[in-house]
Amino acid sequence: MVDLRLIFFGTSSAIPTDKRNLSSIAIIRDGELFIFDVGEGMQKAFLKSKIGINKSTRIFITHLHGDHCLGLLGLLQTMSLSGRTKPIFIYGPHGIIKFINNNVDNLLLKLNYNILVNEIEKGIIIEEEEYIIKTCNSYHSINSKSYLFEEKERPGIFNPEKALKLRIPKGELWSLLQNGEEIKINGNKIRPEQVVANKRNGRKIGISGDTRPNKKLIDFFNGSNVLIFDSTYGDENTINAKNNKHSTSREAATIASKAKVKLLILTHFSSRYKNVDILVSQAKEVHKDVIAAYDLMDMKIVYNK
Amino acid sequence: MVDLRLIFFGTSSAIPTDKRNLSSIAIIRDGELFIFDVGEGMQKAFLKSKIGINKSTRIFITHLHGDHCLGLLGLLQTMSLSGRTKPIFIYGPHGIIKFINNNVDNLLLKLNYNILVNEIEKGIIIEEEEYIIKTCNSYHSINSKSYLFEEKERPGIFNPEKALKLRIPKGELWSLLQNGEEIKINGNKIRPEQVVANKRNGRKIGISGDTRPNKKLIDFFNGSNVLIFDSTYGDENTINAKNNKHSTSREAATIASKAKVKLLILTHFSSRYKNVDILVSQAKEVHKDVIAAYDLMDMKIVYNK
Repeated sequence: MVDLRLIFFGTSSAIPTDKRNLSSIAIIRDGELFIFDVGEGMQKAFLKSKIGINKSTRIFITHLHGDHCLGLLGLLQTMSLSGRTKPIFIYGPHGIIKFINNNVDNLLLKLNYNILVNEIEKGIIIEEEEYIIKTCNSYHSINSKSYLFEEKERPGIFNPEKALKLRIPKGELWSLLQNGEEIKINGNKIRPEQVVANKRNGRKIGISGDTRPNKKLIDFFNGSNVLIFDSTYGDENTINAKNNKHSTSREAATIASKAKVKLLILTHFSSRYKNVDILVSQAKEVHKDVIAAYDLMDMKIVYNK
Repeated sequence: MVDLRLIFFGTSSAIPTDKRNLSSIAIIRDGELFIFDVGEGMQKAFLKSKIGINKSTRIFITHLHGDHCLGLLGLLQTMSLSGRTKPIFIYGPHGIIKFINNNVDNLLLKLNYNILVNEIEKGIIIEEEEYIIKTCNSYHSINSKSYLFEEKERPGIFNPEKALKLRIPKGELWSLLQNGEEIKINGNKIRPEQVVANKRNGRKIGISGDTRPNKKLIDFFNGSNVLIFDSTYGDENTINAKNNKHSTSREAATIASKAKVKLLILTHFSSRYKNVDILVSQAKEVHKDVIAAYDLMDMKIVYNK
């Protein structure tokens, strides 16, 4: 089983606090690093996490508000100074190319590796053998994106006892069945599902970015193992959530519940909350499994039962 | 006596470490705040220092390398979100207007106060009743500035005993003398220096920014109470100092000594130094009073004896 690791580098909205840096989340899978948003100060937490600076890396920006992207240039610079040689692929909404190019020009930023910046719209933006990454619009005050990291289905488990009972000789025929092909043996058809269990779902991690709750996000995040959702406010600040185009923890939980998400992780907390327990409590009134992210929270994502 | 306070928000060069953020120094004098460079992560240290976000503020950038200016936009944003209303004056080398304007445009940065950005050359850039601020070129790989914060001379102390001995009646004549004017009493001329002590020097703080040592900086920093100087390296890395256009602590001390500086403060340490004691020792072989800056070091600057 491939490890799927989730790390939070920053969990505060707008203004950093003593304990929380600005938004940044990473997924690490099979040696590959996926970073979602790079708030100011992220490079320091990144160096602390000892993840290493030369991993295959893709960076996704949800939107071009400073608290979500102003750490990007420092991170790129530090990776270069620390000896990175591999290219970095960057994805974000329209405007990200100009943001990066202008700063590279104005700061005479010289990197020892290539950066390839992509302005994205919606749908699948990355498809690899074992996973895809999708994006859709979120519902914030500017053009903003949500992301979904989704492992593809894994083949079902082959049952050698059933195969032997059906007198299928070990070898090439087993492989054909495992690969989903029908075979014939002594004139009898054998279908793969007779010896191979159902395909197993991969793991899904959804990242809302800054957003109001919205029906379309329920579809987008449907069935996620983990949903990381904008929970800037608690019930008493519902009006601020509406005005500033964010969500309360209860609204996050409502989306999680309707999308049949397993674990909801609250993040992007307003700096007014010294303690976010109340936000977790309010969310738990709607959804069973809820935790609050904290800086350098580091967890393994397991398969849904 | 007006307090003159010096605070270091960041003391690392290029890459932040566990203990050191990127370059930023502040002077606070009589309710006014002067910030020199704003490296990434500075806003967090600034908030921690509880200086307050609505002070009369001037920001000086030594040069447009990311580790000296990438925290500027986040600081401006956070001050606005925290309720600042007073304008901020920003000074820096050519290119700073474009750097700020591009980012304000690309990030749709909305501030609740005005920023006034000035591209500076050399000489006096600010003259107020009680202090001036000067700049000159430093000797780095790109257009870079050093700064000098200099209090004007204060009037000498009036000696009432001497005045009474000379039979000068208390009142308007005392004021005239204190203000440097000659008076006549019973046909005798009295010169101010007969009753007023010599003018007293103000305090001077020099900030080198990133630089190689250079003769011209000796003149520029001459007689400073405090000189904060680029000390990226120790003796063993003299070649790196030369190649990367920085100074060793010994070179910093040589400038301090020749410029008759009282206290030399080393800063901008390469992240390779977990402990900078060796850099202080090497500097002390050349100059008597040397200390190493550390993050959130906070000191009062007194008058030279």
